[in-house]
Amino acid sequence: MRIVRFEIKECIRYGVLRGEDIQVLSGNPFDDANTAVALTAQLTEESCRLERVSLLAPCEPSKYIGIGINYRATAEALNFPVPERPILFLKPPSAVIGPDQNIVLPKSPVKVVCEGELAVVISRRCKNISEKEAPSHILGYTITNDVTDASKFESDSGNPTRAKVADTFGPLGPWIETELDPRNLTLKTYINGQQAQHGTIGDLIFSINYCLSFISHLMTLLPGDIIATGTPQAPAEVKPGDLVEVKVDGIGTLKNGVVGLPQGPHDEREK
Amino acid sequence: MRIVRFEIKECIRYGVLRGEDIQVLSGNPFDDANTAVALTAQLTEESCRLERVSLLAPCEPSKYIGIGINYRATAEALNFPVPERPILFLKPPSAVIGPDQNIVLPKSPVKVVCEGELAVVISRRCKNISEKEAPSHILGYTITNDVTDASKFESDSGNPTRAKVADTFGPLGPWIETELDPRNLTLKTYINGQQAQHGTIGDLIFSINYCLSFISHLMTLLPGDIIATGTPQAPAEVKPGDLVEVKVDGIGTLKNGVVGLPQGPHDEREK
Repeated sequence: MRIVRFEIKECIRYGVLRGEDIQVLSGNPFDDANTAVALTAQLTEESCRLERVSLLAPCEPSKYIGIGINYRATAEALNFPVPERPILFLKPPSAVIGPDQNIVLPKSPVKVVCEGELAVVISRRCKNISEKEAPSHILGYTITNDVTDASKFESDSGNPTRAKVADTFGPLGPWIETELDPRNLTLKTYINGQQAQHGTIGDLIFSINYCLSFISHLMTLLPGDIIATGTPQAPAEVKPGDLVEVKVDGIGTLKNGVVGLPQGPHDEREK
Repeated sequence: MRIVRFEIKECIRYGVLRGEDIQVLSGNPFDDANTAVALTAQLTEESCRLERVSLLAPCEPSKYIGIGINYRATAEALNFPVPERPILFLKPPSAVIGPDQNIVLPKSPVKVVCEGELAVVISRRCKNISEKEAPSHILGYTITNDVTDASKFESDSGNPTRAKVADTFGPLGPWIETELDPRNLTLKTYINGQQAQHGTIGDLIFSINYCLSFISHLMTLLPGDIIATGTPQAPAEVKPGDLVEVKVDGIGTLKNGVVGLPQGPHDEREK
């Protein structure tokens, strides 16, 4: 099943994608802070054509937890040691955008890179779960682009916060695929149609179940929270005017344009 | 005016504190994602005694943005250089607790420290604002305790995420004071009644207005978002059984107990 969130006639709705049609859900499947989402109970008779709506990020995570350097190829390319445990960072909800929305580059001299990643969507509240318990807390998978200002990462001595949190730096979509074994899936990132990254989810240093268990021992995870599992190769720099596509077999393609920020009066703060 | 959020008879409400009485608000003053909160429009005839309710964190931030090393005394005590720009980190909403709720220490060997701080509460959506525009985006001030697992900060090479994000590591309260010039206020942290930290808000390296402008150039701030302005001296270690009090003149005292986590079957993930 593919879960979409979309805007139609200035209303935001959730739905289930059936081919080129969306069967509309009556409510927000992530509304309950505790229990699993009951999609079947929310299905309505209403439907609309996919082409007639604007897709949004398929959920509104209270937490977007990223995992840094989770493929050996990325560690090698960035000259990082293979980590002993998952390296974590957070993106705020204000960073999340949907498919086809623009990534906006900051004004100051920056080196912004794109990192195509598989994203795990949490189905129900969990804390201190084991690897074995992890799969029953996963609603499904979507695609993300962990957009990063690499110049800020360097100038902040490896503190990832300022590099990762900017508005629009967390594209998510196009939908949540709930029936998928991600281990053998291929992920590819294209910039203006040219392949920039390529990897297989099975090459993760820390598996999805391991990461979920690890994170749940630190933080309570809630329905709709996102874990971005890491990018499979060296990130690729983007410039205004670029089109970035992240494609995961079995899910689809997350497309986002890249634009520069219009000049404003307060540029001095963007150092 | 002092804004409280509280639980009474299993309902969560907002109110305005008048001495020992709470005048109940009809809604959530942070509900509107764009505009300033209109408290006066929400005042009801209903009231209840402060002593009869459980106070909660006075708002539910979509973002809790912390600033590291924002006092010279802290930089000296921790042997950090005085930063060139604000050092940022995020705590997730799941870290936030209210007054009188317990800080829960992780199971594994840790060194958890408390950091008493003044917290700024945002009143309305803002992006790219100047220092001069900052005051009109501040609803008021509350108190926070930036609880930190110092051992994780060290083992993660200065990446603050794992050290800062645990459940209960973001106590907030007891209320939001909306009429206050914070510059000359004194902040003190007590552990079991013994003074552990002492400072004056005026000694901030980066002023409140500077921080707000700086952060707004990275991220859109929303009503109810929190900026924790930094702790004025070396953080103080806490152990199970401790009582931590952070007192800011003109606001009040944020009190939280400290407890250990019960042993569970998945301790291996807490490394």
